[in-house]
Amino acid sequence: MELVSCPTKSLPIAIDWVTCSSTFMQSSLIGFSRGEMTNECFHAVNPKNGQALPDLYVKASLDDVEKACRLAKKASLELGQLDGKRKSSFLIELAQQVESLEEEVVLTMSSETGLPEARVRAETMRTCGQLRMFAKLVAVGDWVDARIDRAQPNRKPLPKPDMRSMLRPIGPIAVFCASNFPLAFSVAGGDSASAWAAGCPVIVKAHHAHPGTALLIGQAVVRAIKKWGLPEGSFSLIFGDGKKVGRSLAQNSCIQAIGFTGSRSGGQALFDLANAREDPIPVFAEMSSVNPLFVFPGMSDQGIEEFSDGLTTSVTLGVGQFCTNPGIVFYPRGKIGNKFISSFSEKMKAFVPSPMLHEGIRKAYCEGFDDLASSSEVEIIYKKEPSEAVGVYAGAGILATTIEFFKRKTSLWNEVFGPSTLLVSYQEVDELLEIAKDMDGQLTASLFGNSSDLDSYSDLVLCLETKVGRLLFNEFPTGVEVCRSIVHGGPFPATTDGRSTSVGEGAILRFARPVCYQGFPDDLLPMELREDNPLGLKRSEN
Amino acid sequence: MELVSCPTKSLPIAIDWVTCSSTFMQSSLIGFSRGEMTNECFHAVNPKNGQALPDLYVKASLDDVEKACRLAKKASLELGQLDGKRKSSFLIELAQQVESLEEEVVLTMSSETGLPEARVRAETMRTCGQLRMFAKLVAVGDWVDARIDRAQPNRKPLPKPDMRSMLRPIGPIAVFCASNFPLAFSVAGGDSASAWAAGCPVIVKAHHAHPGTALLIGQAVVRAIKKWGLPEGSFSLIFGDGKKVGRSLAQNSCIQAIGFTGSRSGGQALFDLANAREDPIPVFAEMSSVNPLFVFPGMSDQGIEEFSDGLTTSVTLGVGQFCTNPGIVFYPRGKIGNKFISSFSEKMKAFVPSPMLHEGIRKAYCEGFDDLASSSEVEIIYKKEPSEAVGVYAGAGILATTIEFFKRKTSLWNEVFGPSTLLVSYQEVDELLEIAKDMDGQLTASLFGNSSDLDSYSDLVLCLETKVGRLLFNEFPTGVEVCRSIVHGGPFPATTDGRSTSVGEGAILRFARPVCYQGFPDDLLPMELREDNPLGLKRSEN
Repeated sequence: MELVSCPTKSLPIAIDWVTCSSTFMQSSLIGFSRGEMTNECFHAVNPKNGQALPDLYVKASLDDVEKACRLAKKASLELGQLDGKRKSSFLIELAQQVESLEEEVVLTMSSETGLPEARVRAETMRTCGQLRMFAKLVAVGDWVDARIDRAQPNRKPLPKPDMRSMLRPIGPIAVFCASNFPLAFSVAGGDSASAWAAGCPVIVKAHHAHPGTALLIGQAVVRAIKKWGLPEGSFSLIFGDGKKVGRSLAQNSCIQAIGFTGSRSGGQALFDLANAREDPIPVFAEMSSVNPLFVFPGMSDQGIEEFSDGLTTSVTLGVGQFCTNPGIVFYPRGKIGNKFISSFSEKMKAFVPSPMLHEGIRKAYCEGFDDLASSSEVEIIYKKEPSEAVGVYAGAGILATTIEFFKRKTSLWNEVFGPSTLLVSYQEVDELLEIAKDMDGQLTASLFGNSSDLDSYSDLVLCLETKVGRLLFNEFPTGVEVCRSIVHGGPFPATTDGRSTSVGEGAILRFARPVCYQGFPDDLLPMELREDNPLGLKRSEN
Repeated sequence: MELVSCPTKSLPIAIDWVTCSSTFMQSSLIGFSRGEMTNECFHAVNPKNGQALPDLYVKASLDDVEKACRLAKKASLELGQLDGKRKSSFLIELAQQVESLEEEVVLTMSSETGLPEARVRAETMRTCGQLRMFAKLVAVGDWVDARIDRAQPNRKPLPKPDMRSMLRPIGPIAVFCASNFPLAFSVAGGDSASAWAAGCPVIVKAHHAHPGTALLIGQAVVRAIKKWGLPEGSFSLIFGDGKKVGRSLAQNSCIQAIGFTGSRSGGQALFDLANAREDPIPVFAEMSSVNPLFVFPGMSDQGIEEFSDGLTTSVTLGVGQFCTNPGIVFYPRGKIGNKFISSFSEKMKAFVPSPMLHEGIRKAYCEGFDDLASSSEVEIIYKKEPSEAVGVYAGAGILATTIEFFKRKTSLWNEVFGPSTLLVSYQEVDELLEIAKDMDGQLTASLFGNSSDLDSYSDLVLCLETKVGRLLFNEFPTGVEVCRSIVHGGPFPATTDGRSTSVGEGAILRFARPVCYQGFPDDLLPMELREDNPLGLKRSEN
């Protein structure tokens, strides 16, 4: 990303900004109009060649942010009153709009991120799948957790009043696009989809690495909003820096919660800003996880091969740029361990250096890898330097150490975001329990072995369960399934709210809160709580 | 509360502390043993005469806190594995233990708090009711929100893994006793009961105003824990100051969440401490609420009488020491308004000054009342000064102002915790919407009028819904019903977590988080998630 000077006098600001996608300078989407033409612009960079891409994006002014927030607040009540069917129609429409853009997205996103076409198509499919999942969830409507306690006028010593509660939207949400998921965790990604599903307006801050992708999708959101008559403030898309635009968004009194996927420092900064507000708001930041793998002794030769295959795929998938990338593997010392190292190294060598999402990520990857490698008892098993002279390519890497050293050196727990992993050899399975007890919160932990291992080492399993959002057996953590039971969350520092998930149906619960209605006439209750249950919801009642 | 010097050499520390209730010096309950005999003690004060009560309570050392936390952490895994039936038996046993202490509690609590016998008995009943409600909830077990996505090995392009999730306990909880509910929001109150129900160990910090009551109940907890074989660290009771003992509890790395009911400053301090930790933890602090009443025009003479009756009871109940006490009443100007003021004043005069819970509360009440009264356009309609020369008695009070002045003077929103209320006259109902829009988060808001008013002023209703946890129609907010649908919560500053309730079945959700199991063999899954559903739970599955 590069700052360029762009004098405002020559800008073509009179055209139809929302529908025009070929303009050479693009400002933010503030409701149905466009953001100010400030004199700060940036462009995306093609990670394959390090060249700036032609389109320019204008950073939002603080007035733009304020305007978006006020629009969102104004939209809040109306959006919160929309019935599930209408929200559902909007989300399905949006999925269709995004699908119809697939070819354009392939071009724009590939050039902005260096991600291969197949990945772009897969992520488009996932994003639309997420939108449709929430569409279905709110069309059915059971998610509101309707609870009914009917009046008992004759109860002694006091009559019991009629009380009914359900989940209601919490208000405007600020969503920060993730660098590593330009679609699925960005403009119309899981955070936005779950917020809209809950009935909350969304203000998205685009990621500086893929503004063009953000704008394509943002324009699709605007079209879907207009088509289904949602209020204007239901969505804004803002370009700009975290330190200025992101900060003012997080501090704006209209914003009621924050969704974020990214670095630990970024998530922590938002968390601190939100808690320092006069009215603190919840922050759902998914930040940092090394997703340890625990391999039990006793793997067969065939098992070692399969495990090495799976591990290689999991470590290098998306050039290692997944939150669930396995950063540490605890493996048994001895013959099996040696075979594993040799098999895994061979397979990792097949990984061709590939472009990372942007220079910042590549720099952090290289520094993180070197930092681990510089520890006295950490050995570099394999390291591939990219041969390309341009772009932001990264090669795979394998580091190794012993559990004895690992226990003494807590910095080895640090996440290295990229296609490398640290192998830690152990002697006795009991040592793993010690490791697990000291471990920080993680998105996932994975166990590899026989069923009887799980039983024998149930202490380890039970301990890990308290530290992670998802516990896997003989499966790799990458490839997060979007479904009703997925938990993509975990205790701090995996997230800032260990009681939440940012993927799957449960993600909607982040943006809702229970409200109780006491003594209300039936016809003035929300439909979800009326006596004749017109929506046919599953309710908890007596 | 008064500090006394108590040289440790003369203390009878060899007796059986846990079961002995007649000892003259009592230290904390740290698991099954007693806290250190530090040289800092305090005693409770009888609010009726201002006299110190004879028993002395020893403030915990920081070592005591650390020991309690380590015990809790150790107990955490075992307690988290207990099945619902066993947790249920423990909670029922505890309810029985508390009931069997009723006569002792009446004596101790009345002398420590000045609360009348009937209230002590009613609160005992409520506390045991809460314990039994959670006992039933966990015996049934549906609260774990079990979600099942079965494997689809043949799905294209990738097979779908078997994934199952449920709510699991988050670990040791610190509970701070509330001054105004020595039973229902204290040692075995709603916070503790819901935490145990979730499977979390509890460390309770006693309130300095009622240590004897806390100890009586604490000993009952220990007996119930022993009887049902729960691990020792499932409970500790700690005496001491918030600034030392409370602070070290909130900062201890073993503690995973905090439950608190009390002042805004106390809740905010805990919130700040928790967020400044290396691993921030959630704080469920219920702090400050003025629970506004909105009276629509058109009340009949009969209606005015009934409303004034109800309001008098609600304002003076428990000497006004309820979180849901109605602190502000917006009423229509003119003939109806005048009748209401005259009727309400007459009824309030019947309230006989009564002891508040402790000197600190009375002081804050007097200062808060005087502060409101000192505003230029606030009139004192009625103020009763207590005639008693000793003790901490408080009389009722009524203040009045206009909505025009109220809008200009935001400090009139400040909570005054005691038996007074501020009447605010308005001209047009539309003015109420403006008020509601600017209002901070509240536990409750109540509307009084006809059904047609609710319909006519639906904008006001919808706006209030976004600001409160509970919305009432023609009912008063005091007398919180403990049930499945109650929401005792609300946006900041009503609580520090507007997505939670501290009363009712939903309170258990504060202390649990979802965990997903992927690819687990059926017989190693928690019972709640196994294929044959051995517990017969309501589950979300496909």
